[in-house]
Amino acid sequence: MSFSLTVLGSSSALPTSKRFPSAHVLNVHEHFFLIDCGEGTQIQLRKYKIKFSRINHVFISHMHGDHVFGLPGLFSTFNLLGRKNDLYVYGNIQLKHLINFYLEHFGNDLLYKIHFKPVNNKRQAVIYEDKNITVETLPLKHRVPSAGFLFREKEGERNILKEMIEKYQLSISDIVKIKKGSDHITPEGLVIPNAQLTIPPYKGRSYAYCSDTMFYHRLAERIKGVDLLYHEATFLDKEKKLARLTMHSTALQAATIAREAGAGTLVIGHFSSRYDDITDMLNEARTVFGNTLPAEEGRVYDIPRTRKQNE
Amino acid sequence: MSFSLTVLGSSSALPTSKRFPSAHVLNVHEHFFLIDCGEGTQIQLRKYKIKFSRINHVFISHMHGDHVFGLPGLFSTFNLLGRKNDLYVYGNIQLKHLINFYLEHFGNDLLYKIHFKPVNNKRQAVIYEDKNITVETLPLKHRVPSAGFLFREKEGERNILKEMIEKYQLSISDIVKIKKGSDHITPEGLVIPNAQLTIPPYKGRSYAYCSDTMFYHRLAERIKGVDLLYHEATFLDKEKKLARLTMHSTALQAATIAREAGAGTLVIGHFSSRYDDITDMLNEARTVFGNTLPAEEGRVYDIPRTRKQNE
Repeated sequence: MSFSLTVLGSSSALPTSKRFPSAHVLNVHEHFFLIDCGEGTQIQLRKYKIKFSRINHVFISHMHGDHVFGLPGLFSTFNLLGRKNDLYVYGNIQLKHLINFYLEHFGNDLLYKIHFKPVNNKRQAVIYEDKNITVETLPLKHRVPSAGFLFREKEGERNILKEMIEKYQLSISDIVKIKKGSDHITPEGLVIPNAQLTIPPYKGRSYAYCSDTMFYHRLAERIKGVDLLYHEATFLDKEKKLARLTMHSTALQAATIAREAGAGTLVIGHFSSRYDDITDMLNEARTVFGNTLPAEEGRVYDIPRTRKQNE
Repeated sequence: MSFSLTVLGSSSALPTSKRFPSAHVLNVHEHFFLIDCGEGTQIQLRKYKIKFSRINHVFISHMHGDHVFGLPGLFSTFNLLGRKNDLYVYGNIQLKHLINFYLEHFGNDLLYKIHFKPVNNKRQAVIYEDKNITVETLPLKHRVPSAGFLFREKEGERNILKEMIEKYQLSISDIVKIKKGSDHITPEGLVIPNAQLTIPPYKGRSYAYCSDTMFYHRLAERIKGVDLLYHEATFLDKEKKLARLTMHSTALQAATIAREAGAGTLVIGHFSSRYDDITDMLNEARTVFGNTLPAEEGRVYDIPRTRKQNE
C-alpha cells in the first residue's frame, strides 16, 4: 500500500536546463494524484514512467503559469491515449477559464469529461474524500489566491490474527466487530480482550504540499504532525526581503514551518533559477530542520507504513 | 553569416520520453526565428543555449496543441528575463484567441508588446521581410488550416576586390555602383568590366518548414530548389492509409516531395510515438531521396555559404 511522492519539477517560474516547473505526483495505493502541472509535466510523467491512466484527480495550487501551463498538453495527451474516465481538476475559479478555453479551442474531439471543482483558498476544508484518503485545502499567502493541499491517508482497521479466528471459531460478524476494536465474548461468557485478538492498524500517513507562499506562521498549526511536508523555498535567507516582496519563502523559513509543525521529513523546492547548486539552501534549512531533502526531478519520497502502538 | 536550423522537437502529437513536440529555430545571421512552439520549447531553448533575447519573430504553422502549447510559457519567460523588445507572432487567426487569453489571464504585468500577425494559409505570399530574408507562407493540407514557411536569404552584393579600389582610386559612389554589378569607366574612358573588379556574391540560402500536411504534390513546385527542406514524416509508408486519414505524410512521401522539389537536404520529423527507433523511416526516405537526415533534438543543420559562379 504505497504512499509516496514523485517530484516532476523543482524550479520556480523560470525553468532551467536541469529543472522543470512545479508538478508532483502522490501515489496513494496506486491511485495517482497530480499536484500542480507546470509546462512539460506530461513529458516528465512519461520520462518517469508514471501511468497516465492512473491519474484521475489534478490539484492546482494557484494560477501562475509555472504551475498550470502543462494542463492543456496533458488534456490532449489523455485524449490521444484514448482516455474514457472522467478527470477532476481542482483549483481557483480562474482555472475554469483556462479549462473552458481549452475545451472551446482544442477540445472538440475530447473523448472524456473534465470536471472543474472550484477551491476556496481562504479556509482549510476537505475538498476530496475516497476510501483511502481525504484532501484538505491549506490557505497560503501569495500574490494571487493560493492553496496548498494536505493529503491524509485514513487509518486502517485493526488486523485480526488468523490463529484467533480458528481458536475462537469467529464468525464474519464477530470479525467485523473485532476489527473495529471490540473485545470478543465466547459462548461460555469468557471475555477475550481485543488486544489479544488483533494487532494495531497501520497509521494513516500524510503529505502536505505548500507552494507558492510567503512565510506564514499559521500554516504550521494546520499541518501539525505531517509525515512529509513539501514547502517552497525559492530563495536563500539572505534574500528574505526579495522573498517577502515576491511573496515567496526562504529555505530557512520553510524549515521553520517544518520544525513548528513537527513534520517527519521536509522536501524543499521551487528553487529560483539563480541557484544552480542548491547545497547552500539545503544546509541553511538543515540548521533548523535536520531531516530536509531537496526536491529532485524523478526522485521518489516514500513514506513507509508503520503500525500504531497498542495503548 | 549563419543560416542554420536547430531542431528543438521531433515528435508528433504524443511526445515521448526522448522527443519533444514541434519547434525549430532558424538562425539567420544571428537573428533567431522560432517556428512552431510545442510544449517545452522554452526548456529546449535553454538546454541548447539559444539566446531568448535574439528571438523576435515566431511563426506558428497551425493551431494544434503540439505546435503551440509552449507559447504561454515562453511569453512568461520572456517577461521574467526582462524583455523589452516587441514580439511578433505569425499564425492562423485562431492564434489571436490564445494570445488574448494569455494577455487577459497571465499578462497583466507584461513588460513588452506581443503583436499578432494573421497568416492566410490559402496562398503563397511574403509575410515578412528584413534586410537579410523574406518569409513566405506555404499552403499545406491538414485537418485544420495549416501553413508552412519558406525562408529565403537575400542574395548579397558582389564583393569588390580591395586591390581594385586602390588601383583605380575608386570613390564611395563608384563602389556602390560596382557592388551592384556596374562596370567602371576610368577618367581616361577605359571600361573595366565588373567581373575584373569583383567576385560573385554569396548565393541566397533557403529553408522550407512543411508541417503538418498530408502528401501534397503542389508543395514541391512551391519550394523548387530549396536548400534545406523539413517535411513531416509521421508514419512509415505501410501506414499510408492512416497518414491519409489523419492528414499526415509518410517518410516516403516526404522524400518524394524533396526529390520533386530538387531540395539540397531533407530533414524528416514529427515522428509518431509508435516508432521508438526511426531507422526504418530514414531508410525508407533514402530509397527516394538519398540526402535525408532525421530531425533530432538539439542537432544543428547548417547550410554553408557558397558563392555564385561568374556568368
